[in-house]
Amino acid sequence: MASYKAPLKEIDFVLNQVLGAGKLARLPGFEEATPETLNGLIDEAAKLIEKELAPLNASSDAQGCVYSNREVKLPDGFAEFFKKYAEAGWIGIMQKQEYGGAGLPYTLGKVIEEMLCSASVSFALYTGLTQGCFEAIAANGSEEQKNTYLPKLATGEWTGTMCLTEPQAGSDLAAVKTKATPQADGSYLLEGGKIFITSGEHTMADNIVHFALARLPDSPPGIKGLSTFVVPKYLINADGSLGARNPVYCVSIEHKMGIHGSCTCSMSFENAKGWMVGAPNTGIQNMFVMMNLARIMVGYQGLGLCELATQNAIRYALERKQGKAFNGGDVIAHHPDVRRMLLQMKAVTEGARVLAYETAMHVDASHAAADESAREEAQDWVDLNTPLVKGFCTDSAVDLASTAVQVYGGHGFIREHGIEQIMRDAKILCLYEGTNGIQAMDLVRRKLTLHNGRLPQRFFKAVRADLETGAGFISGPLAQALEELEATTQWVRESYKTSPDDAAFGCVDYMRAFSLVYLGWNWLRIVRAADAGGDAAFAATKRVTAQFFVNRMLSQVPSLLLNVRQSATEAMQADVANF
Amino acid sequence: MASYKAPLKEIDFVLNQVLGAGKLARLPGFEEATPETLNGLIDEAAKLIEKELAPLNASSDAQGCVYSNREVKLPDGFAEFFKKYAEAGWIGIMQKQEYGGAGLPYTLGKVIEEMLCSASVSFALYTGLTQGCFEAIAANGSEEQKNTYLPKLATGEWTGTMCLTEPQAGSDLAAVKTKATPQADGSYLLEGGKIFITSGEHTMADNIVHFALARLPDSPPGIKGLSTFVVPKYLINADGSLGARNPVYCVSIEHKMGIHGSCTCSMSFENAKGWMVGAPNTGIQNMFVMMNLARIMVGYQGLGLCELATQNAIRYALERKQGKAFNGGDVIAHHPDVRRMLLQMKAVTEGARVLAYETAMHVDASHAAADESAREEAQDWVDLNTPLVKGFCTDSAVDLASTAVQVYGGHGFIREHGIEQIMRDAKILCLYEGTNGIQAMDLVRRKLTLHNGRLPQRFFKAVRADLETGAGFISGPLAQALEELEATTQWVRESYKTSPDDAAFGCVDYMRAFSLVYLGWNWLRIVRAADAGGDAAFAATKRVTAQFFVNRMLSQVPSLLLNVRQSATEAMQADVANF
Repeated sequence: MASYKAPLKEIDFVLNQVLGAGKLARLPGFEEATPETLNGLIDEAAKLIEKELAPLNASSDAQGCVYSNREVKLPDGFAEFFKKYAEAGWIGIMQKQEYGGAGLPYTLGKVIEEMLCSASVSFALYTGLTQGCFEAIAANGSEEQKNTYLPKLATGEWTGTMCLTEPQAGSDLAAVKTKATPQADGSYLLEGGKIFITSGEHTMADNIVHFALARLPDSPPGIKGLSTFVVPKYLINADGSLGARNPVYCVSIEHKMGIHGSCTCSMSFENAKGWMVGAPNTGIQNMFVMMNLARIMVGYQGLGLCELATQNAIRYALERKQGKAFNGGDVIAHHPDVRRMLLQMKAVTEGARVLAYETAMHVDASHAAADESAREEAQDWVDLNTPLVKGFCTDSAVDLASTAVQVYGGHGFIREHGIEQIMRDAKILCLYEGTNGIQAMDLVRRKLTLHNGRLPQRFFKAVRADLETGAGFISGPLAQALEELEATTQWVRESYKTSPDDAAFGCVDYMRAFSLVYLGWNWLRIVRAADAGGDAAFAATKRVTAQFFVNRMLSQVPSLLLNVRQSATEAMQADVANF
Repeated sequence: MASYKAPLKEIDFVLNQVLGAGKLARLPGFEEATPETLNGLIDEAAKLIEKELAPLNASSDAQGCVYSNREVKLPDGFAEFFKKYAEAGWIGIMQKQEYGGAGLPYTLGKVIEEMLCSASVSFALYTGLTQGCFEAIAANGSEEQKNTYLPKLATGEWTGTMCLTEPQAGSDLAAVKTKATPQADGSYLLEGGKIFITSGEHTMADNIVHFALARLPDSPPGIKGLSTFVVPKYLINADGSLGARNPVYCVSIEHKMGIHGSCTCSMSFENAKGWMVGAPNTGIQNMFVMMNLARIMVGYQGLGLCELATQNAIRYALERKQGKAFNGGDVIAHHPDVRRMLLQMKAVTEGARVLAYETAMHVDASHAAADESAREEAQDWVDLNTPLVKGFCTDSAVDLASTAVQVYGGHGFIREHGIEQIMRDAKILCLYEGTNGIQAMDLVRRKLTLHNGRLPQRFFKAVRADLETGAGFISGPLAQALEELEATTQWVRESYKTSPDDAAFGCVDYMRAFSLVYLGWNWLRIVRAADAGGDAAFAATKRVTAQFFVNRMLSQVPSLLLNVRQSATEAMQADVANF
């Protein structure tokens, strides 16, 4: 069975030595979030997660969710752990104090999210969607809505969902058909069917709060005619107690490749009562508050699975004896190709962690920084990094899970080792909250052009500023990769205006190249921080891993960018009916 | 549900236009194997496979195999299809006529193997191992053994297995412990446990012939002390009828990520009676006859899954409406990133098919060519290509299955579409019959140095000879990639002598670069053949796909080779205990 030990030393190192998370406590409102306090909370969460959630990962996969007569039974242990986790206050840890949260940084919430996802990504969806629903209502709801729903979501007494997708409307939300008909009392009756609704039905919380996209009768067609509604499973009486069952039902659940412990529901809104959140026809904007944070959350799911795959592969490679290596070693970690796989896993996981944590710190600054220009700058970073965190961490999760299976050999294919589960769980991450192709299009189409190209310029400038203080073996190749990325970025922006197909055809390669340069910067900072610390063995391992990254991964940037700059005309003009 | 239509036009094109399979009929003994005859047989097999096997793929995955009390129940429909398939003569199609086969080319057998694997790779393992067992006994057995076993294996009245792996002996067969104790009557009693035995137990054939690796009491330790034995499930009486149950039992089956329809058995040899095949202590050599062909077979499993993933992704992309593309198209095949994925899948699948079929044709020539030097040359090609076919086609199967899921979006993760199954089924191909890392080591360590480096030289020369007659848009980049591959090959051979860790550390990248150059050559020949044919639309699609391959995949060769030439000293000297 796969086992999980929270990488506390590495988390502390990235937060405090690499990224200087001490600055979080200098943000207004976060004065208590000192490194000592955060580390203490992370240690405490880690203990609970390692001891009580991680053991449920394999059993929940084997057991799955069971649907019967509009109800869903979750895997054994999930409800008990949910209750314990919620009561300890972890769900609301990063939510506003005025609505029942602990008011601590988003960054802390995300570090805990990483650990939760390593232990069970299926379970993490129940708490993650609840946090997402909180954020959507907090950003757009009326004061009454906030007071009604947020404290219950922060404590996990109620859980949340995000009801967007319909059979004909997946990537294309313009096609959403669910109808919302206004009622005399100011409420709406929602009618329609939604699919792929994570955590859509269960009985582990007292109520479920659906945050749903629907269309008013007089709304324009397409994307500009959507509004958002809050639709509780049980109506709420004036005194806050739960009232009648609202006719929003789970009618079936999906049988999936992985995340078997997470219920994926088809929901039927049968004139269910809802209340509009935000203004009419602003549904897409309202939803995107939640969606952008959900994308970062999915990136953390990827990071959590990268870590799980990596640490299990390393443990196995240090135990499994098979043949003699050239260097005389008798465990497989001494075979060069296995060593190569381990270093690749480390290089990606540790580099991706810096990307993910840094993005979370920018989210905190974007809300809490005293200075408006600091908030604006932080928001630019969040906007730029969101597709990278989502795309790179999740593609890497599939890659690294597959690599971990390869380290285990034939045993990796057998369920009882728990390694193939990582690969099955990881694949969904590349699909939901916008496929990774859509992330890449978001980067190319929106993030490169927003504010006249200011976002990537901030990145180029920041990396360049660090080049001089970085170790030469990274700085040199990084400077070169950065230059090529900058040139190609210019090409993409220009080319997109006249022939968007070209840029779009190469967007996935562009996003990967961008991510690799970002990780190059991270490795520069990792080595710098490790060298400055007092642990020589730790620093030596970081240098070897950085060298691996530079020689064998950063080196892929030129050929990826070459792909990007190729014309797609022939490919797009080809008659696809002959394929 | 995934559907399968045999790509008959493409198969015919590759065999006859690209590779000139007409020459098979000029090999002594294969006079009847004309293109017309082969195409007729392929069409006939395709009909049976499409209609009766493909529909079992999803149901057999859902149902799996069930173990109870030393017996294994296979998924519904497998036994019936096996009987029909065997009775139609397909199992023995490429086996020698004197032992009950049809005596047709191995190439024909492999084309049918591709189709069988597209339809159900789980099912294909029952017939594939039976053919492998046939080949091992045919190559090493006594005349009596051949007469006893081969006709029954050729007709599928009996099936075969390959019993190598033990818990402590996976990649490292030197650690095999199963004991074979000689008896007065010339037989041996085998005692020990084997794991991961495909098709180890079932009741769909009258008998099961285990081909097992074991150690004689007086044998040297390690790899040179192994011998091969044939151990039938039921002993065979002098008159050929079946006798007593031999104590070789299935004691459990594995629960796996995929290939649920294939039983993977732990076998207990409890003083089971066996007969030595070949000379004492030559087990590894005897096993490798079977193993090399098994590796090619696994490559065909990969090819079959590449085809299945590709054709389903194309069909879905032509049906699924979602958003408007820049070019106005409303099915997702018009979105550039989806188009990119489809072309990538086509470029790999069609290019890999040429590699796989060409290798099969070399196998035929290696046995049947009249001229000894022609047989030797063909054998060189088989030796060189085996790791490429196994490694590249199976890595590609996982890649392309993952890409197909991506084309389907969230729907790809749902079991009922049958696409995630391809990804689950594909992963084992990278692991069994030698992990792909072992394939890459075989290429670097053995195939590059064999006969003083003659094997890669044949490849370089053959590609170079074709450069002049190829379309310029392929020839130019191919010539450059070839030159770099040649230089790096020289580097690998030299470096391997003094610092084998360096070459071994980069072996997987080297194998990928070699495979991409091979596919570049294939695309040159595909375009040449299509241009020479009369179908302009067909030729146009081939050109677009070739252009895609050259611009976006062949272009990766330099950075892969750069990886290969990097030193691994730091990585190998790092203290892995600190990882």
